[in-house]
Amino acid sequence: MTMLSDPSRKYRPFPQVNLPDRQWPSRTITSPPRWLSTDLRDGNQSIIDPMDAVKKNRFFEELVRIGIKEIEVGFPSAGATEFDFISGLVRSGKIPDDVTVQVLTQSREDLIRTSFESLEGARSAIVHLYNAVSPAWRDIVFRMSKDEVREIAIAGAKVMRDEAAKRPETDWHFQYSPETFSTAELDFSIAVCEAVMEVLQPTPEHPIILNLPATVEAATPNIYADQIEYFCRNLPNRDSAVISLHTHNDRGTGVAAAELGLMAGADRVEGCLFGNGERTGNCCIVTVALNMYTQGVDPGLDFSDIDRIIETVEYCNELPVHQRHPYGGELVFTAFSGSHQDAIKKGFEAHTKQNDELWRVPYLPIDPADLGRNYEAVIRVNSQSGKGGFAWVLEQDQGLKLPKKMQADFSKHVQHLADELGRELNAADIWNAFRKAYYVKIEPRHFRLVDYEESRAADGTRIFSGKIAVDGQEQTVSGRGNGLISSVMSTIRNTFGVELEVTDYTEHALGTGTDARAAAYLECRTPDGRTIWGCGIDEDIATASVRAVLSAANSAVREVAA
Amino acid sequence: MTMLSDPSRKYRPFPQVNLPDRQWPSRTITSPPRWLSTDLRDGNQSIIDPMDAVKKNRFFEELVRIGIKEIEVGFPSAGATEFDFISGLVRSGKIPDDVTVQVLTQSREDLIRTSFESLEGARSAIVHLYNAVSPAWRDIVFRMSKDEVREIAIAGAKVMRDEAAKRPETDWHFQYSPETFSTAELDFSIAVCEAVMEVLQPTPEHPIILNLPATVEAATPNIYADQIEYFCRNLPNRDSAVISLHTHNDRGTGVAAAELGLMAGADRVEGCLFGNGERTGNCCIVTVALNMYTQGVDPGLDFSDIDRIIETVEYCNELPVHQRHPYGGELVFTAFSGSHQDAIKKGFEAHTKQNDELWRVPYLPIDPADLGRNYEAVIRVNSQSGKGGFAWVLEQDQGLKLPKKMQADFSKHVQHLADELGRELNAADIWNAFRKAYYVKIEPRHFRLVDYEESRAADGTRIFSGKIAVDGQEQTVSGRGNGLISSVMSTIRNTFGVELEVTDYTEHALGTGTDARAAAYLECRTPDGRTIWGCGIDEDIATASVRAVLSAANSAVREVAA
Repeated sequence: MTMLSDPSRKYRPFPQVNLPDRQWPSRTITSPPRWLSTDLRDGNQSIIDPMDAVKKNRFFEELVRIGIKEIEVGFPSAGATEFDFISGLVRSGKIPDDVTVQVLTQSREDLIRTSFESLEGARSAIVHLYNAVSPAWRDIVFRMSKDEVREIAIAGAKVMRDEAAKRPETDWHFQYSPETFSTAELDFSIAVCEAVMEVLQPTPEHPIILNLPATVEAATPNIYADQIEYFCRNLPNRDSAVISLHTHNDRGTGVAAAELGLMAGADRVEGCLFGNGERTGNCCIVTVALNMYTQGVDPGLDFSDIDRIIETVEYCNELPVHQRHPYGGELVFTAFSGSHQDAIKKGFEAHTKQNDELWRVPYLPIDPADLGRNYEAVIRVNSQSGKGGFAWVLEQDQGLKLPKKMQADFSKHVQHLADELGRELNAADIWNAFRKAYYVKIEPRHFRLVDYEESRAADGTRIFSGKIAVDGQEQTVSGRGNGLISSVMSTIRNTFGVELEVTDYTEHALGTGTDARAAAYLECRTPDGRTIWGCGIDEDIATASVRAVLSAANSAVREVAA
Repeated sequence: MTMLSDPSRKYRPFPQVNLPDRQWPSRTITSPPRWLSTDLRDGNQSIIDPMDAVKKNRFFEELVRIGIKEIEVGFPSAGATEFDFISGLVRSGKIPDDVTVQVLTQSREDLIRTSFESLEGARSAIVHLYNAVSPAWRDIVFRMSKDEVREIAIAGAKVMRDEAAKRPETDWHFQYSPETFSTAELDFSIAVCEAVMEVLQPTPEHPIILNLPATVEAATPNIYADQIEYFCRNLPNRDSAVISLHTHNDRGTGVAAAELGLMAGADRVEGCLFGNGERTGNCCIVTVALNMYTQGVDPGLDFSDIDRIIETVEYCNELPVHQRHPYGGELVFTAFSGSHQDAIKKGFEAHTKQNDELWRVPYLPIDPADLGRNYEAVIRVNSQSGKGGFAWVLEQDQGLKLPKKMQADFSKHVQHLADELGRELNAADIWNAFRKAYYVKIEPRHFRLVDYEESRAADGTRIFSGKIAVDGQEQTVSGRGNGLISSVMSTIRNTFGVELEVTDYTEHALGTGTDARAAAYLECRTPDGRTIWGCGIDEDIATASVRAVLSAANSAVREVAA
């Protein structure tokens, strides 16, 4: 029953970090980090069909619109396409003054030179140097000693320093990544970073960015947080470095690792929109930012039209945002279950009534409206849904506010239809089921109101005189009662033999202004004790209640026939 | 640039748990939890088109095959469809002896009764009672005091106790969930659980399952771990309870919360395959289990044919597993980037050579073969790829092991093709590009070998005599050298004026046994110092090298023509 291989022979538990006095578990995130999008680099490297210049430009513009101020635009030494896009972007004037572009380069003199050349003329730019430092990479990929690996970083840093000095017109920033940081010896990563800092001489006013990648996620996210806290506590000249996180999602905990890493002292987060990136993707910037937002911390990023952003991302990456992706997925604000729908409905009602803005709607950790989503999308109806759901849909779609007991009556019709169709019901399905159940604006129906007038008799009673079509045949009818409804009731009793007693009645306006109509709901009892519901909708309040009586009469006749 | 609403007015930071001496951050997961799949309940409630009985049965069988021993099969009181499926399953004999089914019920007498009825005749079953306990639900949804909420749980527990006592033929287990646990006061959740335990009188031998849901994920995952540790430390009779986790993924950290919750002392994990479930989904059981596996802990679940499982899940849920979903996604073992491909290639080579089974291949946290995936899927080639990638593909697909310098030569052809097509290259694209670049098994080509024989002259030199088609016209040719290759070289020099000097030569077998063929690679220099490569493939070793010479000659002629 277990897997083919014995995992204990093939895999080893990840070693713990010796940090018994760790502080991060008692901290919270109280301010946003600096954000870097690597969608155009790590993201672009990982997609089946890399973006062309049109897509890259569209993505870049979206990132600017969201408010991301640091954007990694590519790997200029990878080839002519990359180089041309980057140098074209720099020269295009499309980079706003408050946005800094970043490029990635391996630690080889010619590649670093090419990287600086691609940025010729930029107002401000980050050159991001990396080399892998972990034992597996040293032993398997490079066959190099620790000293040799450190020398690669130092040599690259010197070229960076010199190339930057040649181009004083640009405000250069340096970033160094000890790639595979999360699987390397912590003290060695610190030593390499220290060596790079000695070359580049950062200051608190002009700090270096030290980016600490979980190149491959290899442990539970608390370990990454321990690594970040250890690094921050043991790095000399910590105040001359911006500590940056770059997590991946191989274990499904890339967002958690970034969050715990921020609690552990980091200043900056690298990631992609909706978690694109190599293999399982990078940390999702949208999720980390909106997680902060739902804790009352302004992330400084604008996701108020999330559907537009999804459209851009899906177009450029040619990969979908999953239906359940936090905040962005199609289904994340959707409740099919009846009890969930009921609770959400009550939450929205309470939210409307309360005196503060505080959001506390059950099952919805964020107000969908904050992301430009409609409330109507929240509740969807299938065979798992109870009355809360369709009642909500009917109210949103048609404005009808069914009395609670009528919801229970109608729920049987909806449940029946959902079982019969075996699929989700949309608003039109529910509205059609309602019309059919209560003979509202639907043909054929047994009784149909053609016309009527109401008059008052000398004794104060009301007289209903009208024309009612019975299976299409118009009949002139009349009856008398102490009000309009009772006069119609006596008409149908005396003329057609339909005996009903009104046990409850409600009516409400539908819409506002000159287009306003009214909906009337009638609960009736039959002589043998059954409960029958009627509903009437009309521009005129009085006519709506007449229609409600005929609606109930239609149901009564159907039930007798059945 | 920021969002529409000021989040600090609308949302509040989640309060910390006062647990300064928390132990979980120093713990690791060393043994698997009990697993419960709620795919057929929480999962089924959340999908657009709920499963019919055919799909439910197929999903159930898959869960059994994976090795999950506790399976929540539905909500029997929700309707006839649910009830019939559950009671049908119980009566079908399809539940293995070591599998226990679980059903969910709200705390209402009639619903609990119905739930027990649906399980009539089961060998063993878990009845799972829940009611929501958090302030938002108490205030908004139920308008009830704490005492009233606790009374609901107590009343339900009494009905469970009594219904179970009526049916001694089944081995009953009780589960209680304080729903919305993660947003409730911890001491109140403990008090409600304690009250339920007083009714049900669990013992260490027959414990109650206390399931602690993050019904909506509302904080960073360390807070959930704090809550679990606090609960475990403060629950009276802790040893008579199995502590179960049920996390959701609203903040993208449902897997992390489950892992940290296990470190905090929990015994059991509820979740769905590939993280299906309400809204953003439940904790993904596949990910949590395989995360353990990659740390050398056998999860007791079998994902060795993950593609079959994905097929079942996608068929039943009618929702895709995302391309980047950890372990299961189409792209999670894929590297497009050249440096990644090169490192992976070296990692596989080192893995073949090493003396232990230990897995340490760069960029691959798990051996794809452990999940039934092919190595061939690992490396895919597009315009972002370097020579490591296509060389790997060519070796996997055609068995060709190009010399390193020839890889560099061929990389120009691949890069050109990738840029030209603007899409991912598949194995056939690369093979075609190779054939075209080196005139291997392709028409038209300038020189084509028709036939030849080799003889030895009296002075010991070799004589090549054969027929070569030149643009389709056969010519009888011959030449002499101190070996086969040099005799062909002198033939093409003397007959066609193609002057080449051999600078390197390698040959290797292609395949094994009677079908084995050979591939020969020839590095040549032209009189003006250019390097030209040739490749020949043939059943016969000698013929392969003759073909390699003509391959190089074809390239030389093309380059002169160009």
